Amino acid sequence: MIRLTLIGIGTGNPDHLTLQAIQALQASDLVLIPLKGEDKADLAGLRREIIGRHLTGGRVRRAEFDLPRRDTADADYLGAVERWHDAIALAWSAQIARHLPNGGQVSLLVWGDPSLYDSSLRIAARLDSPVTVIPGITAIQALCAAHAIPLNDLGAPVQITTGRMLRDHGWPAAVDRLVVMLDGACAFQSLPPEGIRIWWGAFLGMPQQIRDHGPLAEAGPRIIKTRAEARASHGWIMDCYLLQRV
Amino acid sequence: MIRLTLIGIGTGNPDHLTLQAIQALQASDLVLIPLKGEDKADLAGLRREIIGRHLTGGRVRRAEFDLPRRDTADADYLGAVERWHDAIALAWSAQIARHLPNGGQVSLLVWGDPSLYDSSLRIAARLDSPVTVIPGITAIQALCAAHAIPLNDLGAPVQITTGRMLRDHGWPAAVDRLVVMLDGACAFQSLPPEGIRIWWGAFLGMPQQIRDHGPLAEAGPRIIKTRAEARASHGWIMDCYLLQRV
Repeated sequence: MIRLTLIGIGTGNPDHLTLQAIQALQASDLVLIPLKGEDKADLAGLRREIIGRHLTGGRVRRAEFDLPRRDTADADYLGAVERWHDAIALAWSAQIARHLPNGGQVSLLVWGDPSLYDSSLRIAARLDSPVTVIPGITAIQALCAAHAIPLNDLGAPVQITTGRMLRDHGWPAAVDRLVVMLDGACAFQSLPPEGIRIWWGAFLGMPQQIRDHGPLAEAGPRIIKTRAEARASHGWIMDCYLLQRV
Repeated sequence: MIRLTLIGIGTGNPDHLTLQAIQALQASDLVLIPLKGEDKADLAGLRREIIGRHLTGGRVRRAEFDLPRRDTADADYLGAVERWHDAIALAWSAQIARHLPNGGQVSLLVWGDPSLYDSSLRIAARLDSPVTVIPGITAIQALCAAHAIPLNDLGAPVQITTGRMLRDHGWPAAVDRLVVMLDGACAFQSLPPEGIRIWWGAFLGMPQQIRDHGPLAEAGPRIIKTRAEARASHGWIMDCYLLQRV
């Protein structure tokens, strides 16, 4: 019998790890460590650092393996994602069958929290094994912490959305506060900037963390420039932002 | 010079604490421990457990004090909240002046994460000292983890709102997934239940955690009953839920 544990590890600061995450990691029989895929080099190094720091004995097996790649040429986007998740589930199963033929506890380290814009739960569902989730610090919390701001206004709602949704559908109705994630192209540019404030952060929680905030009309162009420079210098970037309409 | 650190400690499981939170706690010169106020007896005990477990030396001072109460008879609700926050800020300042006359690092343990439906950041802003935020696991993440479900649909938005907003304004426009917090009266009853699923949890992360899920028409009445019984038996309850419109 195989049991899967998806362990949220936070946004890149190894000290985002919770005691519960460390206990789950140490209680594993096998840790799956996918290579390449979405992960950037700095992130892969950080995952190794976490494992090296907390799995000091030799009991827990580690399986590194190449993550299948998504067919980006496939015009059927949602279908391509489904087939990609199928392929990842097969890769997980192959590693599990090889390293744990008699069953046991299998863990995966998930950036942020497994519940937020992450595919691990959907992939895990394909394996037909019981799944346990250990929550981790999300980029949203790291963003608010970096700026020392609340996510919500007093008693007011907040919407979490994607760059694509913001670009294609504009500011959503009946909400004045918006977190935008998965935005590779600064979708805030599609908004008329008047009356909007932005709090932005990249590499949140990591030593290279950068942030900016201000009225969108002034901070927006600065952020576009900073983001492009940081992406060029690091070779990758992960960022998100909070928008407030006043 | 006084520096304030607001430390998110998660939803009631002492193992929700991050390594960063433990380090911040141990680096404090003074920990403020407000008594009564919103905190229920079980929660106050848990805060003491966290402090007892991680502050084993005698170096860090602890100041327990009675939290001022909000004037619930005041018809001016927002004004009463402002005056209440003023009074809490004064109580913090009095403890700090008494225990740290020469300045230092002051920490407060905040349930969940200081960014989400919490007043600590607004109170801290009244003290005019630099504020650091250490993010913690929120009830939303604990809810998703308890059910092993994603917060968002693939690439889709999710809105976080309050029981009062849901009751007064109905289902918000242009979003099919909704987290409802601060709901003392099961506001989901105000919705026509057809086509809605609910995932509910109370005492999330704690040993007494309970949860339920299903189509709202079936699960809703069960949850109302379970919630009332659990509240009567424990003397208090903290819960939240995710709604999905299909």
